[in-house]
Amino acid sequence: MSGRGKLLGVGVGPGDPELVTLKALRCLKAADVVAHFAKEGNESIARRAVAEYLPANVRDLPLRYPLTTAMPKGAPTYQSVIKGFFDASAELISTHLDAGRMVAVICEGDPLFYGSYMHLHVRLAPRYPTEVVAGVTGMSGCWSSTGTPIAQGDDVFSVLPATLPEAELERRLVDTDAVVFMKIGRHLPKVRRVLDKARRLSRAIYVERGTMRGACAMPLADKGDDCAPYFALVLVPGWEAGS
Amino acid sequence: MSGRGKLLGVGVGPGDPELVTLKALRCLKAADVVAHFAKEGNESIARRAVAEYLPANVRDLPLRYPLTTAMPKGAPTYQSVIKGFFDASAELISTHLDAGRMVAVICEGDPLFYGSYMHLHVRLAPRYPTEVVAGVTGMSGCWSSTGTPIAQGDDVFSVLPATLPEAELERRLVDTDAVVFMKIGRHLPKVRRVLDKARRLSRAIYVERGTMRGACAMPLADKGDDCAPYFALVLVPGWEAGS
Repeated sequence: MSGRGKLLGVGVGPGDPELVTLKALRCLKAADVVAHFAKEGNESIARRAVAEYLPANVRDLPLRYPLTTAMPKGAPTYQSVIKGFFDASAELISTHLDAGRMVAVICEGDPLFYGSYMHLHVRLAPRYPTEVVAGVTGMSGCWSSTGTPIAQGDDVFSVLPATLPEAELERRLVDTDAVVFMKIGRHLPKVRRVLDKARRLSRAIYVERGTMRGACAMPLADKGDDCAPYFALVLVPGWEAGS
Repeated sequence: MSGRGKLLGVGVGPGDPELVTLKALRCLKAADVVAHFAKEGNESIARRAVAEYLPANVRDLPLRYPLTTAMPKGAPTYQSVIKGFFDASAELISTHLDAGRMVAVICEGDPLFYGSYMHLHVRLAPRYPTEVVAGVTGMSGCWSSTGTPIAQGDDVFSVLPATLPEAELERRLVDTDAVVFMKIGRHLPKVRRVLDKARRLSRAIYVERGTMRGACAMPLADKGDDCAPYFALVLVPGWEAGS
């Protein structure tokens, strides 16, 4: 036990265990409790990335997302179920912090960039000593593994969730130098259409599972629309070599 | 010597030596030559971040940016001086690669995200075995060290170079949930004006030297306009806690 309760939000990078930072490694080795978000029945990607580094006697604290697939996303029920889940997760962690334990919440990518950790952070950071350890994002892992220079100089760079309406994606794509589309999944045909319309399909790269085992990448033009996971990305470089 | 020439673009993170990844560390230890960009008279930030990890007998290859401050940025002279510099740097590195050496180009942050390395990459990757090691970006370091959740859910996230015209910054800020302004320097008053006009000044955070020694961060509203370095950032979170 570390004496005084402390919350650590630890970015563990895009999946390759070697893309963990020295600081994350030190935090994991010092942790009494390792918490991680995952869907019921799925192993946490973050947990898998750091499995080999965890102390033998560490307490594992899986935080299981509630099943909300049947609920419409904007609905009040959905909102209250999700809020209740984060409230309960924060309380669970606070019992360990109150007992003087160091709790590391391990996060795929970077904790404060589109991560669930921030829901715990806003609930707990006002009450406990807290530290956030930056991590390599999933998108950095994807453009590095494919050797794709993404943005340069005075480029405007944007991350666009593919869940947005088609007209909005189109408007934003036309107005931005470098784009990463995330949350692809069933939105792949829509993303392809907006890229085609903007005459940027030929430069778009599709990446699945970035730096993890089973990673695959290809020109989006070569990828079928039939199946893409939610966590796939499409990279649209801004900078053109020689320009 | 490693036998066969190989080019490594190695992201070393935002400045804190502990935010280097295990993969970067392994590459540095295996490198025969360590190349890094810097202005004449300035030590490379990347070089300083990894100084303690470099093998004693490694060859240091500083790549000194030409002095272009007197030249207007869009001018043909400027363009040709910069292009000549990257051509010459690539040729210098290629002599080491031809001699069978492993050359690590160390990069602050992430190599393919607004980094000079990409100019070498496009020149050398078609000719030599090449690998890019993703790194923690400077902006991740900044929002982590200040505990600022930056983007969540379906937020649109954008990086806006503060060098852009005021009207363009204004238009883009109003249209984006989460924004990082970079290349602040003498553009700070302009960034403050557009944030004020968009009624988002109160949530903006100014960060200087991110995770490095001498780092400082404060609400932008409390920061004077008098002096800000070129590499300072202004963070404008998209996500509001509780939403």
